[in-house]
Amino acid sequence: MSRVNLAEKLTLFSDHWVPKVVSTFNGHDVMVVKLKGEFTWHSHPDTDDFFLVLKGRLTIRLRDGDVHLNEGEMYVVPKGVEHCPVAEEEVHVLLIEPTGTPNTGDPSTAATITPL
Amino acid sequence: MSRVNLAEKLTLFSDHWVPKVVSTFNGHDVMVVKLKGEFTWHSHPDTDDFFLVLKGRLTIRLRDGDVHLNEGEMYVVPKGVEHCPVAEEEVHVLLIEPTGTPNTGDPSTAATITPL
Repeated sequence: MSRVNLAEKLTLFSDHWVPKVVSTFNGHDVMVVKLKGEFTWHSHPDTDDFFLVLKGRLTIRLRDGDVHLNEGEMYVVPKGVEHCPVAEEEVHVLLIEPTGTPNTGDPSTAATITPL
Repeated sequence: MSRVNLAEKLTLFSDHWVPKVVSTFNGHDVMVVKLKGEFTWHSHPDTDDFFLVLKGRLTIRLRDGDVHLNEGEMYVVPKGVEHCPVAEEEVHVLLIEPTGTPNTGDPSTAATITPL
């Protein structure tokens, strides 16, 4: 285990929608990710989904309304709740999910999650 | 579940070393805490301990060396590892631990952890 500077880690890649693991704890991956554009609607049946905006602005669309997150704001999407992340401009996000959670909710379409 | 602005939450209290729960996910408490001074050496036998510095500077003393964390830097203290957080000046920290984890490692001396 070593200290992780999140901003430094975010300089090491430029692709969107592919979370990078920077640490792990208690069976969870701590990931940084760059998002831009609109993702797909999905849910995770058994796992809550932790989002913290590190830079920029993120909208999490829910079936009953949108959640707008600015820098320093966090939100937990509860298990089973359909959501669709959207970012008009690039946003940097800290994501925490149990290791092995498919980012699209579906292993057949999920990004391959690897350590940075 | 609602959006949580971490800086706003940190304006709502001034005591040190008493984590405040601002959200929960997957059996964990997401907490903000203000630290100043030196805590007690302790460990958590079964749970990793996630620290992210939101403002200021934190030292986590370990038996084999110190970890210095500035704003935007995180560290996971692995389960069973003795540690002692120290802050020369007040530091604001995001802490994530399984719900029910005693902050001192010992239920008889632990702070009462409550929602903010």
